[in-house]
Amino acid sequence: MIVKRFKSNIVAHLSYFIGSEGEAFVVDSERDCQVYLKVAQRENMQIKYIFETHRNEDFIIGSKELAHLSEAEIYHGPWPEFQYGKVLKDNQEFKIGNLKVTAIHTPGHTPGCVSYAVADLDSGTETVLVCTGDTLFVNDVGRTDFGGPAKRREWSTNLYNSIFNKLLPLGDQVILCPAHGAGSVCGSNIALREWSTLGLERLMNPLLQLSREEFLEHKVNEHHEYAPYFRMMEKYNVEGAPFVGAGKILKAMSPSELKKAMDEDAVVLDVRSPAAFGGAHIIGSYSIPLSILSFTGWFISADKPIVTILESESDLEVVSSLARIGYDNIVGYLGGGLASWYSAGYPLKACPHLIVASELKAWLDSGDECFLLDTRSKDEFEGGHIESATNIYLGHLQKRINDVPRRLPIVVICGSGNRASVATSILLRNGYEEVYNFLGAMRAWKKLGYPLTK
Amino acid sequence: MIVKRFKSNIVAHLSYFIGSEGEAFVVDSERDCQVYLKVAQRENMQIKYIFETHRNEDFIIGSKELAHLSEAEIYHGPWPEFQYGKVLKDNQEFKIGNLKVTAIHTPGHTPGCVSYAVADLDSGTETVLVCTGDTLFVNDVGRTDFGGPAKRREWSTNLYNSIFNKLLPLGDQVILCPAHGAGSVCGSNIALREWSTLGLERLMNPLLQLSREEFLEHKVNEHHEYAPYFRMMEKYNVEGAPFVGAGKILKAMSPSELKKAMDEDAVVLDVRSPAAFGGAHIIGSYSIPLSILSFTGWFISADKPIVTILESESDLEVVSSLARIGYDNIVGYLGGGLASWYSAGYPLKACPHLIVASELKAWLDSGDECFLLDTRSKDEFEGGHIESATNIYLGHLQKRINDVPRRLPIVVICGSGNRASVATSILLRNGYEEVYNFLGAMRAWKKLGYPLTK
Amino acid sequence: MIVKRFKSNIVAHLSYFIGSEGEAFVVDSERDCQVYLKVAQRENMQIKYIFETHRNEDFIIGSKELAHLSEAEIYHGPWPEFQYGKVLKDNQEFKIGNLKVTAIHTPGHTPGCVSYAVADLDSGTETVLVCTGDTLFVNDVGRTDFGGPAKRREWSTNLYNSIFNKLLPLGDQVILCPAHGAGSVCGSNIALREWSTLGLERLMNPLLQLSREEFLEHKVNEHHEYAPYFRMMEKYNVEGAPFVGAGKILKAMSPSELKKAMDEDAVVLDVRSPAAFGGAHIIGSYSIPLSILSFTGWFISADKPIVTILESESDLEVVSSLARIGYDNIVGYLGGGLASWYSAGYPLKACPHLIVASELKAWLDSGDECFLLDTRSKDEFEGGHIESATNIYLGHLQKRINDVPRRLPIVVICGSGNRASVATSILLRNGYEEVYNFLGAMRAWKKLGYPLTK
Amino acid sequence: MIVKRFKSNIVAHLSYFIGSEGEAFVVDSERDCQVYLKVAQRENMQIKYIFETHRNEDFIIGSKELAHLSEAEIYHGPWPEFQYGKVLKDNQEFKIGNLKVTAIHTPGHTPGCVSYAVADLDSGTETVLVCTGDTLFVNDVGRTDFGGPAKRREWSTNLYNSIFNKLLPLGDQVILCPAHGAGSVCGSNIALREWSTLGLERLMNPLLQLSREEFLEHKVNEHHEYAPYFRMMEKYNVEGAPFVGAGKILKAMSPSELKKAMDEDAVVLDVRSPAAFGGAHIIGSYSIPLSILSFTGWFISADKPIVTILESESDLEVVSSLARIGYDNIVGYLGGGLASWYSAGYPLKACPHLIVASELKAWLDSGDECFLLDTRSKDEFEGGHIESATNIYLGHLQKRINDVPRRLPIVVICGSGNRASVATSILLRNGYEEVYNFLGAMRAWKKLGYPLTK
Repeated sequence: MIVKRFKSNIVAHLSYFIGSEGEAFVVDSERDCQVYLKVAQRENMQIKYIFETHRNEDFIIGSKELAHLSEAEIYHGPWPEFQYGKVLKDNQEFKIGNLKVTAIHTPGHTPGCVSYAVADLDSGTETVLVCTGDTLFVNDVGRTDFGGPAKRREWSTNLYNSIFNKLLPLGDQVILCPAHGAGSVCGSNIALREWSTLGLERLMNPLLQLSREEFLEHKVNEHHEYAPYFRMMEKYNVEGAPFVGAGKILKAMSPSELKKAMDEDAVVLDVRSPAAFGGAHIIGSYSIPLSILSFTGWFISADKPIVTILESESDLEVVSSLARIGYDNIVGYLGGGLASWYSAGYPLKACPHLIVASELKAWLDSGDECFLLDTRSKDEFEGGHIESATNIYLGHLQKRINDVPRRLPIVVICGSGNRASVATSILLRNGYEEVYNFLGAMRAWKKLGYPLTK
Repeated sequence: MIVKRFKSNIVAHLSYFIGSEGEAFVVDSERDCQVYLKVAQRENMQIKYIFETHRNEDFIIGSKELAHLSEAEIYHGPWPEFQYGKVLKDNQEFKIGNLKVTAIHTPGHTPGCVSYAVADLDSGTETVLVCTGDTLFVNDVGRTDFGGPAKRREWSTNLYNSIFNKLLPLGDQVILCPAHGAGSVCGSNIALREWSTLGLERLMNPLLQLSREEFLEHKVNEHHEYAPYFRMMEKYNVEGAPFVGAGKILKAMSPSELKKAMDEDAVVLDVRSPAAFGGAHIIGSYSIPLSILSFTGWFISADKPIVTILESESDLEVVSSLARIGYDNIVGYLGGGLASWYSAGYPLKACPHLIVASELKAWLDSGDECFLLDTRSKDEFEGGHIESATNIYLGHLQKRINDVPRRLPIVVICGSGNRASVATSILLRNGYEEVYNFLGAMRAWKKLGYPLTK
Repeated sequence: MIVKRFKSNIVAHLSYFIGSEGEAFVVDSERDCQVYLKVAQRENMQIKYIFETHRNEDFIIGSKELAHLSEAEIYHGPWPEFQYGKVLKDNQEFKIGNLKVTAIHTPGHTPGCVSYAVADLDSGTETVLVCTGDTLFVNDVGRTDFGGPAKRREWSTNLYNSIFNKLLPLGDQVILCPAHGAGSVCGSNIALREWSTLGLERLMNPLLQLSREEFLEHKVNEHHEYAPYFRMMEKYNVEGAPFVGAGKILKAMSPSELKKAMDEDAVVLDVRSPAAFGGAHIIGSYSIPLSILSFTGWFISADKPIVTILESESDLEVVSSLARIGYDNIVGYLGGGLASWYSAGYPLKACPHLIVASELKAWLDSGDECFLLDTRSKDEFEGGHIESATNIYLGHLQKRINDVPRRLPIVVICGSGNRASVATSILLRNGYEEVYNFLGAMRAWKKLGYPLTK
Repeated sequence: MIVKRFKSNIVAHLSYFIGSEGEAFVVDSERDCQVYLKVAQRENMQIKYIFETHRNEDFIIGSKELAHLSEAEIYHGPWPEFQYGKVLKDNQEFKIGNLKVTAIHTPGHTPGCVSYAVADLDSGTETVLVCTGDTLFVNDVGRTDFGGPAKRREWSTNLYNSIFNKLLPLGDQVILCPAHGAGSVCGSNIALREWSTLGLERLMNPLLQLSREEFLEHKVNEHHEYAPYFRMMEKYNVEGAPFVGAGKILKAMSPSELKKAMDEDAVVLDVRSPAAFGGAHIIGSYSIPLSILSFTGWFISADKPIVTILESESDLEVVSSLARIGYDNIVGYLGGGLASWYSAGYPLKACPHLIVASELKAWLDSGDECFLLDTRSKDEFEGGHIESATNIYLGHLQKRINDVPRRLPIVVICGSGNRASVATSILLRNGYEEVYNFLGAMRAWKKLGYPLTK
């Protein structure tokens, strides 16, 4: 038995290629599914099955393209909204090489969620690992808010039952293989560590330490964001998204081509670091650093042409990353980087002001007025913030722009400086001028021991 | 001005990406044309034009796919058989970045051949290099036999005039950029060296040392082979071939799948070394070592499914190599190599006999009878062979199989052992049993100073 | 917490890079230790510690070089024979980033064995994984024969106690991180699967299903081989081996240089496949296919210069592989492969005879005499062999060569054909002529359902 | 005959690997000389000779290490200052494979310069290419100022004679292989194009269009800079520099380690783009963007420890680049980039002001006073500058810092913005506050058609 885990950037999605004796299956194929074909080739295995743990809401599933490129059959849970693949019965079994895979209905995150318990018959009949999708993560459990408020208690109850009555009974010794790792929007608290077992979760996952009632209470009331692009994922994942093949080779545009594209309504997406965006950028561009690229799904419409500003060729992963969330409309990048733009004599803007923690502390201590705009999530904000700060979640900033005063200097706050850069670009686009980009942000603030309000 | 030269294996085709100040052109695009897009990206250049020196006969042109993936326009010579692109006028000029490109009609190899003289206006107006297609190679000139015997003198005359009246007058200092390097079937004598100038050719190219009459005499009488697959190239290059994208990820087949494919009429193509094929191979398979893979075009029909036997994953280039000559029908390779075949209990065959030069010499000296089958080209054979050898060019072996006696031991001879391996596999398929594979072949024979007949 | 597992080929050694918040440690560094520096770089971590589970017997430890290239300190168990590093106390604890590492004395495989239990304090204080060295493997346990027969019961008892009293009590949920995977000489039965937990071992590891007495009985009597090169490992690992840096770029030798080296006493090591060796090889060369390269340690002295015959450039890993077992004396490889040898007119040999399972079956059924030489290990042989076969373990073949009769045809048998190729080369070197190389071997024999004796 | 050209970044050095029939030579080995070993391996060639065109002044020669790693002998010209290798006679000939190499004394750039004419005997006896070192470049010729003013006319005369009496007579058709390409400090006017011939130079090289007297006049009076680090190169290249092997794996430092190194006198070298440095940087750091990294040789002493700030891992080439000019003292880079610095709460600085061409134009038109500091070379400045600008070559800025007024706003000008970033960092280190970084600089100024003074 061999197991390969893949982590897709931007969506922190974990998928699995598992095989034995020339046969294999894939759980939750990512969109650029050629990665599995390459492993199949290297391991001399045939991909026989593609198993869905559920219809994902935050990224595009690559199963249909993978099935097209291999001989695999797609299987998924009983929820009706899949226009391809076959529906699994509870406890349906598969023999793949010398593995036994059992599909276990584990509703909760959605009504159709399925987990897959895998036994390696080379060693015995015990379950070795279980692919739990969005039912159980390392240190967290799945969201239960996608059915709307009316269904929330029911779905949360299902989730509790699935975890406690179906997964944990498989045994402490079973290795946990969830569908997301740290950084996913599908769980606010997923651990960085990707190695865990059912026993470790039973003993340490904070939600599994709660009583049934505490668990339901928590799940019914916890706060999650719903990014606008999720709606598009729904459509794509019901029908199957357009194929991406090996991906496209993005075109290096000249400054004049880029200018022309902008004049024809293209959006400029600048993925460089906050420092670089702060130092100089194209007027009107969005700053969305690569590490938080999924915010594209909040601010930019997927039907708009997008041109990108990169720091270097290694940033070209922006194409495959955005493809994961359905943005197939990147028309090019500025060849030669920002230098080619300003060398051609086009205008630039710098961010008005840089501020670091000690300077902000001195300012606040001085009593001079400013508007502290904290763009972190509700949970993060409530976990500790600067006393006078106002919380507007970054994703909501554009639609709540009128809640940001125009007569005061604005200090933009986030975790370490990345989201603040996005917010700064939104504010600049909306005509704000006296904006302070707080680099280091709450991480530096805490490191220096400055006071927090909870 | 930057110049990138690409050499495509299997067909020894040379193509060029030439650019200046953000603009570029490609001469004679190879089929897997994404290579040029990557250079364009790295150099921040737009491919504006794709220039054909002529409609190639021995490989698939990638221009139509490249035009599809870029904004380039295709230009070619006046010969009518192109169903895409624009026809050039003689001496038509293009400005690309700070380059001036002049299209010069240089008929001869075909009536529509065009050469492209390139000046780098950054330095001055002199021609820096000329892309000569199949008109002039390093040490050789183009074939003139594609029009058939009736046209041969006329085409040869045209070639002479193109070289002496159009190319050489550009000046000794001009760098030569031909469409083929050593190993191409488009010239029997192309030098290994890829760096040359018009002056070096004027001074050293053996054919340019001949008088006009000697030149015509030579060209009208020289012998060339016409591989069966050329006819397919014609069709593809007139219309434009199917697109290949980034190429396909070949499937690793299990021994039983491979067996099944064979039962359903797939051809087994074994690209391992002659030694490995000699040691053990699947009964009925063709031995065509990677370095002479174009012989596939002589023996295997492009509409047959092909399964391949590789030595290692690095041999997977067989897919892109065969795609260059129109074989898009490779359905898989034996995963785990030949070992997976014999470990599954399937039968094998070894080549009956290995022989080296000293052993053959002793045999011949002993007076014992055998049939020496020399599979090299007519030219090579006439350049020096073992006295008693019979010449049947490898490409013709299948159709001349009855010229090989069945009552004598056969010793198969070629240059160094590769073509002999192909011939051995053909003989085995035709029921010959007492076959001696002569490894080292004429190269070893000459090295040891054994006698040659010319 | 991040965990990276590395598998070193040739010795099937597993090592680990484990880190958290900018700090990391390495367990059982492999010799080419730059791999850890690259991960440290990518993860922005400082390697603070290098932990030895024990002084390995079958490969060279890279800790001393890694310590030299980083700021890490080396720690190891209380066994005296390490001339570097510090000795650990039982239950000594380390804080690394936000990890807690506890060193647990687990003697048995050797008296100084240490296991490392790692807790990820980001989640809680439970042990997440344990690095068990050669104490506990997936499906097997460590050897207890290195102390000689007199110590065997004592060491086996220690091993039992370490597993049952120290490791298993950590809990079923703990992830198992052993020092070897399938293919190692340190356990005859290690599973291919690398993912396991203490609970899975408790439930399925065949040796952990035994009673204490059965366990001791088994361990005291089980058979292991001791390769001659182990003695050299001992010396290297006591003192620290010479540094290897980024490895050396092996020289491509011409046939005449190779011939000269042979004349000056270099050994020819042919790592090509059995089929290729069978088809043609240099007279006197050793056939040791890459996948079983560690047999070099049985037949070739490490102080001899070695020249290698490769199938392709991808086989150049032979240099780093052999360096792992202390062979730093590879002076070059035959540039251009075997073809350059025979093209230069040098003599060759083929293996005398190829045989497959069905042919051998027919032969045996015919009653004609032959000597069936089964080169597998004692355990494999006893697990099922052809009735009339004689077992001489491959490693012992040279010194037991007189047990192989000269008047009979020899059929060489192994698992699937690789070891048979080695044995064939040994027999040819010893003047045997009528040798049959059985490709497919017992794997094919079983697949075809032919009779076995146990 | 095969020819491989290598371009070393930072010093724009061109070196050559040239081979035939298993033998090869290298001309002007770069310091990280393993690149040639890899080609030798791939081409199955032995490096027999290393030829120096001269003792280079601007980078470290790798010949001694290459000779150590191969069996090659080093040859160089008659100038005495080489403590290794053998001295060539004029017209000394070498046979390498089927090549004939003739060493031609071509003094001028230095008294010991040698050019190497190479004939490919496979084609004939004509010279195919000539390696001219720093004697003749594409579009330029070598400097003649290294002997000091007293020798300048004599050396220039020698150069003229070498070019006109020794090189050009080889014939227009000979391919030119110089030791430097565009971007080298060894010629101010070298063309971007790397493909040329002696004939093309004869016809288009501006200096070869001059009369003998004009040529001498030009060479005696032309202006060159002499970077401080050249003196170190002299020492290294006389004796042979320390070996670099495969290069070192640079350590990712934590912010606190970096801070500690700074406190212990390490210099901070920030190689990010001008925009990123402008947006935020560590106080006191030098901005030297990767594309002009050789300015390190002007400002930082090679015996100081250096810590680097990178944009991404792809910038790690800084290590091999600086090693080329003798900086072996890079102790680490800031892991996680600048974000890890500011997330740890350390202070930052932004560049005070960004300005683009249109804004500067408006400023100058307004009549408001400012100091325009043009940091380009004398030649560039004289070729066209903004009327009121003052020229201080970037390399001289530190020592001429008192020529920059403190009471005026400073606008820093260069070609396109890179050198201005360096100058800005120097000014900031010297306490200047009102500094305007002019991005786009003269390139943008010219593009917009603003007035120039010559």
